[in-house]
Amino acid sequence: MSVAFVACSRPQSTSIPAAIAARVRGISVARIVLKFGGTSVADVDRIRQAARHVKREIEAGNQACVVVSAMSGKTNELVAWCRQAAPLHDAREYDAVVASGEQVTAGLMAIVLSEMGIPSRSFAGWQVPIHTDDAHGAARITGIDATELDKRMNEGWVPVITGFQGVSPSGRITTLGRGGSDTSAVAVAAAVGADRCDIYTDVDGVYTTDPRIVPRARRMNRISFEEMLEMASLGAKVLMIRSVELAMAQKVRLVVRSTFDDPEAPQIGPDGAPGVPGTLVCDEDEIMEKQIVSGVTLARGEAKITLRGVKDKPGVAASVFGALADESIVVDMIVQNISDDGAVTDITFTVPDAEYDKAVRTLEKASAIEYEKLAGSKGGAKISVVGVGMRSHAGVAASMFKALADKGINIQLITTSEIKTSVLIDDQYAELAVRALHTYYGLDKPEA
Amino acid sequence: MSVAFVACSRPQSTSIPAAIAARVRGISVARIVLKFGGTSVADVDRIRQAARHVKREIEAGNQACVVVSAMSGKTNELVAWCRQAAPLHDAREYDAVVASGEQVTAGLMAIVLSEMGIPSRSFAGWQVPIHTDDAHGAARITGIDATELDKRMNEGWVPVITGFQGVSPSGRITTLGRGGSDTSAVAVAAAVGADRCDIYTDVDGVYTTDPRIVPRARRMNRISFEEMLEMASLGAKVLMIRSVELAMAQKVRLVVRSTFDDPEAPQIGPDGAPGVPGTLVCDEDEIMEKQIVSGVTLARGEAKITLRGVKDKPGVAASVFGALADESIVVDMIVQNISDDGAVTDITFTVPDAEYDKAVRTLEKASAIEYEKLAGSKGGAKISVVGVGMRSHAGVAASMFKALADKGINIQLITTSEIKTSVLIDDQYAELAVRALHTYYGLDKPEA
Repeated sequence: MSVAFVACSRPQSTSIPAAIAARVRGISVARIVLKFGGTSVADVDRIRQAARHVKREIEAGNQACVVVSAMSGKTNELVAWCRQAAPLHDAREYDAVVASGEQVTAGLMAIVLSEMGIPSRSFAGWQVPIHTDDAHGAARITGIDATELDKRMNEGWVPVITGFQGVSPSGRITTLGRGGSDTSAVAVAAAVGADRCDIYTDVDGVYTTDPRIVPRARRMNRISFEEMLEMASLGAKVLMIRSVELAMAQKVRLVVRSTFDDPEAPQIGPDGAPGVPGTLVCDEDEIMEKQIVSGVTLARGEAKITLRGVKDKPGVAASVFGALADESIVVDMIVQNISDDGAVTDITFTVPDAEYDKAVRTLEKASAIEYEKLAGSKGGAKISVVGVGMRSHAGVAASMFKALADKGINIQLITTSEIKTSVLIDDQYAELAVRALHTYYGLDKPEA
Repeated sequence: MSVAFVACSRPQSTSIPAAIAARVRGISVARIVLKFGGTSVADVDRIRQAARHVKREIEAGNQACVVVSAMSGKTNELVAWCRQAAPLHDAREYDAVVASGEQVTAGLMAIVLSEMGIPSRSFAGWQVPIHTDDAHGAARITGIDATELDKRMNEGWVPVITGFQGVSPSGRITTLGRGGSDTSAVAVAAAVGADRCDIYTDVDGVYTTDPRIVPRARRMNRISFEEMLEMASLGAKVLMIRSVELAMAQKVRLVVRSTFDDPEAPQIGPDGAPGVPGTLVCDEDEIMEKQIVSGVTLARGEAKITLRGVKDKPGVAASVFGALADESIVVDMIVQNISDDGAVTDITFTVPDAEYDKAVRTLEKASAIEYEKLAGSKGGAKISVVGVGMRSHAGVAASMFKALADKGINIQLITTSEIKTSVLIDDQYAELAVRALHTYYGLDKPEA
């Protein structure tokens, strides 16, 4: 996936910015983007709680810029109304309707901040402006004019920006697609040259695995963009993949932290010294000691389909997965074995359980695909181990297979990438496998 | 109250507008603005019902432009959130928050119209643009650029515009104050040179009096702007005063009609022939037979206060009503008798019951006002008869007093204007008085 975003250069300011002035005085000052998700702004009391985090940053002498989502549940309500109005509706009108949710929270946040004595004003996407292409409902940010934001922050103001949206070349409101507020925050952080982009959410960081499965799961101090991408796409739904891609491309340091921490408590970093709580998602270079395996992830509800005796000729894979793509079926793991005799081969892949029946029907109808037999079943679980250290450590896959074999767990499918190894197993062994791997790779112990 | 609105001239179109082309072909075609209030767009089903009225106009060969309010209850919810965020909030942020309500209904209406096969798109105030001053929360429209609206309508599109809002010179969202959607509709009608501005609401027209009090109250066929202004300010809350003032200044013909009438039923005018159902609010010149009295209105909960023995010197009235205005107390009827000896006089006025105690305290505290005694009581009822025919018919006041005397009703206060006579009476006689006057002036009978 390409990242189309082009950051506007940080505009020159004729007055000395507060941050620079403070640095001259020997004080450590940062420019920070704070992003609050739907549960963090679910009602006015929560908006007030979120605003106290902003206040703390301002009182520490930092500059702050806020990006907000709609109140949780609000976007779903607006989407439901659009569907009720017409099953097939104009995406431009859909965008005009659903973008109203962030407009409400941005205004309320600006009111709350002003009430706290912090000069603040709201900016709708079109007011910044945040320019996007005209792919309504799934628009991409093409540029942000940060002139006004920069000026306001240097004057001590806190701009509050509606996440998830922008304005098209023809002046219509666009939305970036679900979860787009993370992307907005990263894009704004890049445009204003922020030192950090703090993603405030309902969890206090990124964990080595799901704490509901492994109570000893540990919050990571740091994780690289690459690892976060693999974690995000494998079920640790803390950050939208797209925002991590953009942060990696634009070198924006992300912090995943909790809105519900006491905003006035001393700020203690993961190492116990004063610092920023939460998990820092950053460039690999910022991570000194690379873990071989940083985390273990689990994705359930994976159905597997095997085509046996497929004619092994050029274009066969393309015709199989092309037919599925035409039906908008998302395929995850793909394995194709080398054929014994060069005549026929087996292709196995996974799709979400909910898409299984549709996928089978699609393949049975596709007369151009020649195969002997189709077999498959629902209810698989995909377990993955992720870590940039894998690059320099041979044998991670082998050790993973051994750890699972020791527990008597049968492996159905294997796929690997540079920093990730995934296996498909029977769902009933899912928790056992996660716990075993978490212990095996030393993740139960405190970080060194 | 001055009307600051300046309509932009209707732009020249190089192509022949559909309406003109139709007129050339001998078909009667009109350009109509349809305004739907909160109860008319309370949910998606009601929006669909409203859209069927638009469809009927388009199918009749007319051009249509729609102005919508927020779903009923929605604006109150948004206002409550602003108050919860801070009792004293920045009016600019209040506007950003509350303006989101119309954005939702405009988008949904455009979706529903498109689904019906009518090309449509939504316009937020800033997209039209509807220019206003920067008096946030109570902004005045300063001009509308109708170029895009005009072009769209000539091409057969239906623009759907958010009522109640516009954009300030500095590019921020403004709102016109409660009920401002009527004003938006009239301003748009003036800007696009509409033949009619149909105000769709939950009643089917303007009545000679409240039908809950007089079951034989009759829907008026036509009412002049002046009469409507007096009716509106006296309790017949069908149209906002401001929108009637603007319609009068801009010569925009208004029709008050019901959203809940069957949109596909034959359109029958008040005279029984094919036409526009409802009450036409128009210039006096369009009304052939002027009624002496067109309607009887009732406003309850009027408290009266009398200051006896007030020193009769210049500026005394100004000091009394200045003190009340400083406390934001709205005074309605005012009567001052000529003093017997030029030394002292009595001043009587009315305020809403809810403001009575505050008004008394204010006057008792105001040491600059010299009077002998303050007397007053709550629970008065103001009855008014309104009609442009009064101008040419002497003795309407006298006949009104006689009609009330015949029923044994005592009159406490009298005020008159060019087309209105009002009396204050004891509340227990309110319904009796309204019924008596309604019959006395022949309003029970079908319109001639």
